[in-house]
Amino acid sequence: PDAGAAAAARQRLAALATPPGALGRIGETAVWWAGVRGTATPPPPQEVHLHVVAGDHGVTTRGVSAFPAAVTPLMVQAFLDGGAAATVLARHLGVRVRTHDLSVDVDWPAGTDPDLVAHKVRRGSGSIDTEDALSPAETDAALAAGAAIADASVDAGADLLVVGDMGIGNTTPSAALVAALLGLGAPTVTGRGTGVDDAGLARKTEVVALALARARERHGADPLRLLGALGGADLAAMAGICLQAARRRTPVLLDGVVVTAAALAAERLAPGTAAWFAAGHRSSEPAHTPALAALGLHPLVDLGLRLGEGSGALVALPLLSAAAVLLAETALLADVLPPA
Amino acid sequence: PDAGAAAAARQRLAALATPPGALGRIGETAVWWAGVRGTATPPPPQEVHLHVVAGDHGVTTRGVSAFPAAVTPLMVQAFLDGGAAATVLARHLGVRVRTHDLSVDVDWPAGTDPDLVAHKVRRGSGSIDTEDALSPAETDAALAAGAAIADASVDAGADLLVVGDMGIGNTTPSAALVAALLGLGAPTVTGRGTGVDDAGLARKTEVVALALARARERHGADPLRLLGALGGADLAAMAGICLQAARRRTPVLLDGVVVTAAALAAERLAPGTAAWFAAGHRSSEPAHTPALAALGLHPLVDLGLRLGEGSGALVALPLLSAAAVLLAETALLADVLPPA
Repeated sequence: PDAGAAAAARQRLAALATPPGALGRIGETAVWWAGVRGTATPPPPQEVHLHVVAGDHGVTTRGVSAFPAAVTPLMVQAFLDGGAAATVLARHLGVRVRTHDLSVDVDWPAGTDPDLVAHKVRRGSGSIDTEDALSPAETDAALAAGAAIADASVDAGADLLVVGDMGIGNTTPSAALVAALLGLGAPTVTGRGTGVDDAGLARKTEVVALALARARERHGADPLRLLGALGGADLAAMAGICLQAARRRTPVLLDGVVVTAAALAAERLAPGTAAWFAAGHRSSEPAHTPALAALGLHPLVDLGLRLGEGSGALVALPLLSAAAVLLAETALLADVLPPA
Repeated sequence: PDAGAAAAARQRLAALATPPGALGRIGETAVWWAGVRGTATPPPPQEVHLHVVAGDHGVTTRGVSAFPAAVTPLMVQAFLDGGAAATVLARHLGVRVRTHDLSVDVDWPAGTDPDLVAHKVRRGSGSIDTEDALSPAETDAALAAGAAIADASVDAGADLLVVGDMGIGNTTPSAALVAALLGLGAPTVTGRGTGVDDAGLARKTEVVALALARARERHGADPLRLLGALGGADLAAMAGICLQAARRRTPVLLDGVVVTAAALAAERLAPGTAAWFAAGHRSSEPAHTPALAALGLHPLVDLGLRLGEGSGALVALPLLSAAAVLLAETALLADVLPPA
């Protein structure tokens, strides 16, 4: 980010016709936006692209989710049809949506939009309790897919990327990845996802513990190998989007625990990447809070959302716009007070 | 509110193509909106009116604020000029703003917009540590002014009212009013407002304590008399807006501690009124949290804002719109799943 633009924004913020600090974290968000846009008073986001990255996970066969894996392609279809919650919000907010099948466990019928499967790496990622989610080559392919997705958006004029997830079972690899990158234990990071019962939570915690033990033994603290071993093709592609967005000096508004787990891996692969991130919301999944803290991010909203899809980021998007207009258009105190 | 509409909304919420409860408090907000709009899937707010109610307070002579009372009319002018933070947000969001001088300690020059002073009750409210803020007749006049303001908006087609405040020193009467209505002590409710230092906070706490002791002795637990003794004409008018909005079956999105103190008085004057309220944000002023809790309200955002003006409510307004579109437009799970 542009430190000079951020400093100029902070100076203007302090000079507004408001008491010092009265805009709270809206003011801090405005300063961040100025830095990532490289100018003291940038307009609010004009061209926002939501990338929904879809994938299946072998661990769904272990009873870690309240829904069967067969729901993933049905929800992908709901994205294409515009009926998924995040697509409803995107339409309301004027956000462009692209849905990417990285690893959904399905062969789409002939006639399916080729863009949907342009970046497909495999059908389902490996069951992380017994095998790596991806091979090193597949991890590289998913990261490259994410980079291509980000490049296409930036080349098309996007000034903000939003990343969303779709995939039954995907909070299990996310929890494992956060735990592995931060040195946490399985019970600390494992939550109920879409709503498993106590027995499901116990199974899920055990799967995360097994996956963590496997991955730590095989891959130590190598963030690239941990991303491939624990994350799956969808999470690796999200990390690729985050990495390439930062290289292209384009900010990313993060969603919930899945996207944030991938963003944490991106930060570990290229320290400093997180300066391009803002956090939309705090999910009720327990791995989300330590991941946000490790990235130094404070979410804009905290409403108990746990839907994924990018929905939490899109709920928060108008707050970023509000921050931008407040910084740019509020009168200065010197202009409100009479001449001395 | 319409219990049938709320129940229909809750039923639809549970049937959406999302995991149960995954929309968190956005879902609860959608159910509230359905109830107050009287239909299961109302559109988002279409015609929102922000009423900024301005007034001065005698206690500013006691050193309770970081700014002198002379700033109040300057900021009122900034509202009229569109440079105040809340007016910036209102313009961005398509919200109509009306500014009302209830008790600013100024005589406006000839040629001032007559709407600004149509409801003026007096120049400055009494210094609550030594006298009642208003006489009973002035309290009635301010309440009636609020009712007229609400009526005009509802008659003009508003589907949501937002109430904001402007007045140097107004967190002092707000803290005292909340404490008197809830039986709390001065140290619990008194905060730094626009940013007083430790000595200022001590003076402010002492003023609140004196005011509480006076008002309790003279007026006991009578909410109408406490509103007049502690609140001032601006707060009484805000209470009047809240009361009349509820009578007219029109919802109100609350802002910070000043508006919420007035809303709490309204609820005590007419129990059940709070069913028409939603809380925009949680301010950092300490009296705000117990007032919200007493009203049974959960704020949509919590970003350390402490500006007033209606700014916290307007920052939160897009979240209410998001709730409405999500409930109305998200696909039902039954429509996403294949026929059994």
